[in-house]
Amino acid sequence: MTKSYHVAVVGATGAVGTQMIELLEEAATFKIKQVSFLSSIRSAGKKLSFRGEEVTIQEATPESFEGVDIALFSAGGSVSKALAKEAVKRGAIVIDNTSAYRMDPTVPLVVPEVNEKALFSHNGIIANPNCSTIQMVAALEPIREAFGLNRIIVSTYQAVSGSGVSAIQELKDGSRAVLDNKEFTPQIMPVKGDKKHYPIAFNALPQIDVFTENDYTYEEMKMINETKKIMEDNTIKVSATCVRIPVVSGHSESVYIEVDKEGITAKEIQNALKNAPGIVLEDDPENQVYPQAVQAAGKKEVFVGRIRADIDDPKGFHMWIVSDNLLKGAAWNSIQIAESLVKLAII
Amino acid sequence: MTKSYHVAVVGATGAVGTQMIELLEEAATFKIKQVSFLSSIRSAGKKLSFRGEEVTIQEATPESFEGVDIALFSAGGSVSKALAKEAVKRGAIVIDNTSAYRMDPTVPLVVPEVNEKALFSHNGIIANPNCSTIQMVAALEPIREAFGLNRIIVSTYQAVSGSGVSAIQELKDGSRAVLDNKEFTPQIMPVKGDKKHYPIAFNALPQIDVFTENDYTYEEMKMINETKKIMEDNTIKVSATCVRIPVVSGHSESVYIEVDKEGITAKEIQNALKNAPGIVLEDDPENQVYPQAVQAAGKKEVFVGRIRADIDDPKGFHMWIVSDNLLKGAAWNSIQIAESLVKLAII
Repeated sequence: MTKSYHVAVVGATGAVGTQMIELLEEAATFKIKQVSFLSSIRSAGKKLSFRGEEVTIQEATPESFEGVDIALFSAGGSVSKALAKEAVKRGAIVIDNTSAYRMDPTVPLVVPEVNEKALFSHNGIIANPNCSTIQMVAALEPIREAFGLNRIIVSTYQAVSGSGVSAIQELKDGSRAVLDNKEFTPQIMPVKGDKKHYPIAFNALPQIDVFTENDYTYEEMKMINETKKIMEDNTIKVSATCVRIPVVSGHSESVYIEVDKEGITAKEIQNALKNAPGIVLEDDPENQVYPQAVQAAGKKEVFVGRIRADIDDPKGFHMWIVSDNLLKGAAWNSIQIAESLVKLAII
Repeated sequence: MTKSYHVAVVGATGAVGTQMIELLEEAATFKIKQVSFLSSIRSAGKKLSFRGEEVTIQEATPESFEGVDIALFSAGGSVSKALAKEAVKRGAIVIDNTSAYRMDPTVPLVVPEVNEKALFSHNGIIANPNCSTIQMVAALEPIREAFGLNRIIVSTYQAVSGSGVSAIQELKDGSRAVLDNKEFTPQIMPVKGDKKHYPIAFNALPQIDVFTENDYTYEEMKMINETKKIMEDNTIKVSATCVRIPVVSGHSESVYIEVDKEGITAKEIQNALKNAPGIVLEDDPENQVYPQAVQAAGKKEVFVGRIRADIDDPKGFHMWIVSDNLLKGAAWNSIQIAESLVKLAII
């Protein structure tokens, strides 16, 4: 008989949590016997519907995880730090969508299309990578497998939904204010907890997350460090410039790579991606076919196009990688990790 | 006695022409004895004010250039091809803001901060580079002079105003439609004359200008070829990915460079830019100071920030370059060329 699982969603009312619940309802391939929707005290008591039944949101406490098999965390790093180990103690496997445990050497950081096997070494917690990292490594892994990869330089065009529901509202309110020639004072972007706030409407902000000591932002360092960890290769050179643009959902990335192998053509790069898992090749310049954020929003795949050889560097290639940051970049990758755990009989 | 000049503006009602007239009125340092505002037959007869006097727009014909000293062209490549040589025949020096003559080896392609001396070799026509090229080379030239430069990889975040007044309107109308949940059918972006049109509102479009045979767009090839011509160095590796984003005015660029000299620090790159002509260094991550499109709009300078060393490549640096694409990227650079012609006694 097929096993059936008790799944908890921590951060059930957030932008990612909402998507997780939808995907559990509609897309997940494993059997679910029970769900627990958990949140802070503020949202506790609210009701959500799940497969036709009403589920009351409960405050997340250590005891909430009694009997839970899979706990999907997406309520911020501090909640994960406070409760993930409590969930593990009670027998759950935690799939954590925050940055709390991503660089912990005892925690696998997993994009199933890339390093599913890393799940075997879990110690109760599995980390879901940063949204901008996931779509990039998913698209680059088939190329790395075929031709080797020694360098990545990425500039991102990131949507505001990664900053949560209130950031989406700020983009919309700010945009309307500009169109109506009204004053608007931003209070969230680029980073809610940082000192200054700037308009994201009709602007581009080269700051996502706060700055680190080396003048890169945390978002940029996440892309750099997580890519090396997921690809299990510290020798790949990775650089990132992360930029927020006025898009609601869907991160776009302009990516330059250098492969190891000589004499590779853009056509061969395209062929490596054509049947790759989770990848959709949208690359037909003559017919103006290339990935776009508004087209990727709501979809689970990673879209790749504008693949072309560098003119000066025989091992260099450029491409444009787009995906829904809340889905493959967060909720869907977490559900996929749960599916892999079931498929590999780890749970 | 100081010389005084008769200046013609061709394309007087366009997005760039309007700015040229404003700059001639307020900023130009040379004396103007007369202006001629020229356009297609469609706008002929309209009146514009210039320094308190009414000027009637005339249809641009070969005869319009009789007596003109400086003719500023910004009415599309076909108009330049039809009329620039007619203006030269009648004694004018043409400063052409279209792509018609940029790669002509007999035509200097000039950013005054970079290659002002190329003006001495003019044969009547001087080309104004592409907007996205100008701000990049203006920022990189001081670095090249100090440390040498062997590679540029740029990803752009370009405003719609470069596509003209109707593109700005399409961004605004499209944005409002999304906010109001209404249907909207784009008819201009990404390229008015191309087969398909896509929304620019809350989207990012990796196509500016049409595609060339090598799967780069013309905009990308302009940045590549023009940079080499302006810097008078065909050995610099240049690659570009050009992307339109929902910004009204102000192009942003994520630029990666490799310098020739070893052991250079980010601080030294900053110092090279600190007092460079036309450059404003806005680079203080700790206080969230970095260039932004909405802050650069309406200003004549090129703003540079987010300067940091590449983590893996000892000669690599990243930076964020922003400027008003209609000003330094077009109208202001043209006026500066005219000022240089006067200053160098070429005219």
